[in-house]
Amino acid sequence: MERNILLTIEYDGTGFSGWQRQPGVRTVQGELEKALSHVCGKPVQINGTSRTDAGVHALSQRASFRGEFGIPTDRIPLAVNNYLAGSLGSGYACGDVRIIRAEEMPADFHARFDSKGKTYRYILRHGSAASAFSRNYCYHLKAALAAEPMRKAAAFIEGTHDFACFQAAGGTVRETTVRTIYDLQIKEPVAGEMHIEVTGDGFLYNMVRIIVGTLVEVGQGKKSAEDIPAILQSADRQRAGHTAPPQGLYLVEIYYDEKPMKERNDDHG
Amino acid sequence: MERNILLTIEYDGTGFSGWQRQPGVRTVQGELEKALSHVCGKPVQINGTSRTDAGVHALSQRASFRGEFGIPTDRIPLAVNNYLAGSLGSGYACGDVRIIRAEEMPADFHARFDSKGKTYRYILRHGSAASAFSRNYCYHLKAALAAEPMRKAAAFIEGTHDFACFQAAGGTVRETTVRTIYDLQIKEPVAGEMHIEVTGDGFLYNMVRIIVGTLVEVGQGKKSAEDIPAILQSADRQRAGHTAPPQGLYLVEIYYDEKPMKERNDDHG
Repeated sequence: MERNILLTIEYDGTGFSGWQRQPGVRTVQGELEKALSHVCGKPVQINGTSRTDAGVHALSQRASFRGEFGIPTDRIPLAVNNYLAGSLGSGYACGDVRIIRAEEMPADFHARFDSKGKTYRYILRHGSAASAFSRNYCYHLKAALAAEPMRKAAAFIEGTHDFACFQAAGGTVRETTVRTIYDLQIKEPVAGEMHIEVTGDGFLYNMVRIIVGTLVEVGQGKKSAEDIPAILQSADRQRAGHTAPPQGLYLVEIYYDEKPMKERNDDHG
Repeated sequence: MERNILLTIEYDGTGFSGWQRQPGVRTVQGELEKALSHVCGKPVQINGTSRTDAGVHALSQRASFRGEFGIPTDRIPLAVNNYLAGSLGSGYACGDVRIIRAEEMPADFHARFDSKGKTYRYILRHGSAASAFSRNYCYHLKAALAAEPMRKAAAFIEGTHDFACFQAAGGTVRETTVRTIYDLQIKEPVAGEMHIEVTGDGFLYNMVRIIVGTLVEVGQGKKSAEDIPAILQSADRQRAGHTAPPQGLYLVEIYYDEKPMKERNDDHG
């Protein structure tokens, strides 16, 4: 009987040219399809929910695929992870992608089209120099950012807007650039570190990284929180901030069952 | 005038075949000497304090070198770090070694021979699977270790002993295998993680990793804390535990000014 299998996947994006399969380069989709095809005994193609860019990480990416296979669904993660580890030996790339879970879904389920929303986290660190250990896992800035103006700016970005100003050229053309951001929080979990967490129903190409770049410029005093409504209204990419680099970005969660709830802190502006 | 310059160095050991210069492979000493020779305008050879193995990390390695150079000492770190970053572009290796500090020392100072002691940290994590993010930075174990028997075993290891049982074959031959361990602590800083911190006047080849492997076996109940005195007395490598893998090991500090103080916690056994 044909099964429709949903995978939950974790990866360190440093060693990949992004999610999407491309000939001649190492991608997350490409590596997973090679391993799945080996383990399932026939060619497998997967549909990923989020086509993350080169250097972007995922704590919980989702992808689905269909077929009749000899291997039980619950044995797929270990078999694929062992294959991936064995094919790479030791070094950076060993274990940089792994399947956390595989589960059977109804026949009409689709990992991308059925997604109701996503949460991304962006990690910033400040200090005189980037550490040898965090260089691939955060956006390093010399000086601390002012969190309060960033929280004010975030409050203007939350909600349903035309986000054309936060869209990079080069993405898939979509019918509309209207999206809803349910929640955009600025957190300071430890000294020297800031997390920007954003949950929305969907994101345009590079939208999270341009929002982060814009918030960084607000935190540096180069832009004011009160500029945000006019930037949104302009629909002009040139008026928003820079695109924050990929290595600070983590795909944290993808929602299927219901709309993600907005959880706001009191200190949120 | 000839200067005698001491460097403090940080590196992620994953992408290196260890500290020591070797033809045809990427080593920390080799990369630093290339960059220093470029920046100083003449061939530079450095003396490292600790010849760490492939995959072992350093938060504060030390190395010294002598010569007459055009560049001021305090400009060396930034110049070398920029050269290293520029030569590697992006990806894992970019920024995986950097000079934290350069300082001038008296003419007779030697980074290795004048060292009075060192501190290493070993990081262990437990859980059903190794994360894609921590795979190169800890020793992953399926089940939690029992900390109390490990603390009892550590108390037997502290002090001045013949540590021949904890020495791997293949190291430089030394006159004596007697060393002093000032402090050996088992810490549990967060759930799922254990740190083993050891300070001593010097360490034999693979000594820290064999101590950790032995303590792990005590924490798993395969060995008892009370076995330790007989293992030490036997001077027999076969009676000690396995060699813990390199990626959990961090060189944390090197002492020059005085003997490192022993700081014991009350819960230390």
